[in-house]
Amino acid sequence: MAEVHLPKGMRDLLPAQMQARLQIIDTVRKVFARFGFEPLETPAMERIETLMGKYGDEGDKLIFRVLKRGEGGERGEVDQALRYDLTVPLARVLAMNPGLAMPFRRYQIQPVWRADRPQKGRFREFTQCDVDIAGSESPLCEAECLAVASAALTALGFRDFTIRLNDRRILAAMAAAIGAPDRLISMVTAIDKLDKVGEDGVRKELAAQSFAPEAADLLFSMLGGGPIPEVEAYEAGLDQIIGYAHDLGVAPGRVVKDRTLARGLDYYTGPVFEIVVTEPKIGSISGGGRYDELVGMFSGRKIPAVGISLGLERIFVVMEELGMLGAGAKAAEVFVTRFSDATLSETLQAAAALRDAGVPTCLALDGGKLGKQLQQADKTGARWAVVIGPSEAKAGLAQLKDLRSGSQQTLPLTELVAQVKAALG
Amino acid sequence: MAEVHLPKGMRDLLPAQMQARLQIIDTVRKVFARFGFEPLETPAMERIETLMGKYGDEGDKLIFRVLKRGEGGERGEVDQALRYDLTVPLARVLAMNPGLAMPFRRYQIQPVWRADRPQKGRFREFTQCDVDIAGSESPLCEAECLAVASAALTALGFRDFTIRLNDRRILAAMAAAIGAPDRLISMVTAIDKLDKVGEDGVRKELAAQSFAPEAADLLFSMLGGGPIPEVEAYEAGLDQIIGYAHDLGVAPGRVVKDRTLARGLDYYTGPVFEIVVTEPKIGSISGGGRYDELVGMFSGRKIPAVGISLGLERIFVVMEELGMLGAGAKAAEVFVTRFSDATLSETLQAAAALRDAGVPTCLALDGGKLGKQLQQADKTGARWAVVIGPSEAKAGLAQLKDLRSGSQQTLPLTELVAQVKAALG
Repeated sequence: MAEVHLPKGMRDLLPAQMQARLQIIDTVRKVFARFGFEPLETPAMERIETLMGKYGDEGDKLIFRVLKRGEGGERGEVDQALRYDLTVPLARVLAMNPGLAMPFRRYQIQPVWRADRPQKGRFREFTQCDVDIAGSESPLCEAECLAVASAALTALGFRDFTIRLNDRRILAAMAAAIGAPDRLISMVTAIDKLDKVGEDGVRKELAAQSFAPEAADLLFSMLGGGPIPEVEAYEAGLDQIIGYAHDLGVAPGRVVKDRTLARGLDYYTGPVFEIVVTEPKIGSISGGGRYDELVGMFSGRKIPAVGISLGLERIFVVMEELGMLGAGAKAAEVFVTRFSDATLSETLQAAAALRDAGVPTCLALDGGKLGKQLQQADKTGARWAVVIGPSEAKAGLAQLKDLRSGSQQTLPLTELVAQVKAALG
Repeated sequence: MAEVHLPKGMRDLLPAQMQARLQIIDTVRKVFARFGFEPLETPAMERIETLMGKYGDEGDKLIFRVLKRGEGGERGEVDQALRYDLTVPLARVLAMNPGLAMPFRRYQIQPVWRADRPQKGRFREFTQCDVDIAGSESPLCEAECLAVASAALTALGFRDFTIRLNDRRILAAMAAAIGAPDRLISMVTAIDKLDKVGEDGVRKELAAQSFAPEAADLLFSMLGGGPIPEVEAYEAGLDQIIGYAHDLGVAPGRVVKDRTLARGLDYYTGPVFEIVVTEPKIGSISGGGRYDELVGMFSGRKIPAVGISLGLERIFVVMEELGMLGAGAKAAEVFVTRFSDATLSETLQAAAALRDAGVPTCLALDGGKLGKQLQQADKTGARWAVVIGPSEAKAGLAQLKDLRSGSQQTLPLTELVAQVKAALG
């Protein structure tokens, strides 16, 4: 017997984790809908040429390639790949559906795949919860993104989080100021590591990328608040976004301008943002920005767009560590025992009546000793057990055992259902 | 500009379709939970050796293979593949998690991928909604599967559907009776086409598979109700399942024994079932059966199991054709117009208040002529529009326009929110 494994960086979501995840997704989905975003889903696979060249060289290497299959397909030929994010698929959808009414506000909650080196808490399959607005250049779009992400986190119970805000054009102005207007992405990639490696680390990285020490000095002076030429309009734009976001319900002080914020993706063209929590030290749980050129890469028709993405796995880790997740998984509220074959028909009908009333109900499938069945009931997390013996079956009654208190009562089935339903609220 | 395409057999789910799908999934999920099934999700990818050899030769050819990526990976080497169904991944989970309490009842709603020839209504990515019970040989498990699938379809509004029931061992007895005990799968594959090609077609298929005409005669006599040696126990087992299913709430007459039912998958070992609708002529919308040997293929530890799968896409097609889907998509209930920059702050606060009250609310992002904004409101499907001009802003009021009747009123924001909320129920 060969040992069984999962592919590297993949994991199963067992019931306890799944129930918490479903609650999170349900909450997030409701907030997205409240903000007027509509659901969209795209296929797991895109054509290889749709994905390549959108995420930078590093990103391209992390794309999972899929062999061509079916008629005409040769083994070994790659023509499609698993999506790397939800933004490029959206851009492709916009290009292929010119009839969509603009502005188009969509949310999308789906897994993405990246062949990253697996680490603790980092997987090769993870779920993004994205909202995007396409078809408007108004800074209200950025404010809507910050407001909806903030509302979603608040609805999940988050209290301490900060929204960092910057503009890719301010970073470009810094690159120009240090004499490297054509090396924006190298500079951005170096700055992006500031949280992890500190100023010395970034300086080393810049030196390795052949930036002169004087350039690094000037860069750090600008990052520290020193003057940057010709960025007044962008700074004012960020202030405007902050004002709009506050009017849209984002708590005062929640959004802070931060010149060191440098989102890595190639496709951003304007404001960029990131949401960070201080506890636990997990870094960003959300990020996004404006990408006015991406859709045009597919359709030739320029469609401005902006979006934000919440990382489900990171949100889950924070909620788990801070004890924000609800009670653990339970399979059912009621466990219906199987007393004997003689009363099986009444037993099954009792389970059916409870389920019809919306009560999550498990059934003892194999019978056996009642004590063992009640142990099994405990494992399901059920609060009550139902027992129907010959005398109860004859009289149309059922025994209801409270598995917490151990108390029990015998009552007609309809009353039993009503009582359990009332207790569940 | 290169034209943009999707990979063959893939499609996007735009908002109108997505909203209907989410309703279906939500309904199905609630019924699954009511029956005491717990959620599970597995990764999109499995190791290639986990999937191969479980679906028959035809199935193996339809598995999408993924190139190895990341450290140590060579281009062109395949080590993983996209899942083909949800049953084999479940068997792998059971093998890898010996601590799971038995019987283990899980549901799983996720896409699967098959490189089938794309046809109208058939895609290479589709979603299965599975429930399975592992760890019990009781025929109550089969009855639970039929009951939960029946309850899910009923909750979706299905009235006319039939559950066909057979036993793989009855088919094996037929194969033995016609002198081909070792060619069960060939025989099953031929019978499986009966609905499509009729008796003559199946006879041709059998002849092509070198079954003698006398064998085909005997087979059709058995399929038509003639005696089959040594199947009394299996027939009685099916009757028992039908009785249990009725006690568990399945409508009388809904489940019918059908000797011609021949589910194609290799791994079934006992009862098999399929749910069919008569209108529209789409064939089965659900199928399943008992597979007592599959888990053992991974763990060496025999774990009996049985499950049923609802096909989301086929259910969607039926509901669409029969007009069972709810109202079309709407992005929002309220569309907040943008009158002028002077009243923008009050406008955004009004949107925030509506959203805080749980009212799906869109915002005019770009301003412009009010008439054009109201056209945009119509496109979102909103029932009301809110307008806040300078006089309203000054007085803390807002205009609420009913976009159906055209009537409008001016009232304080809190009253506006309360009124809209009350109207939405």
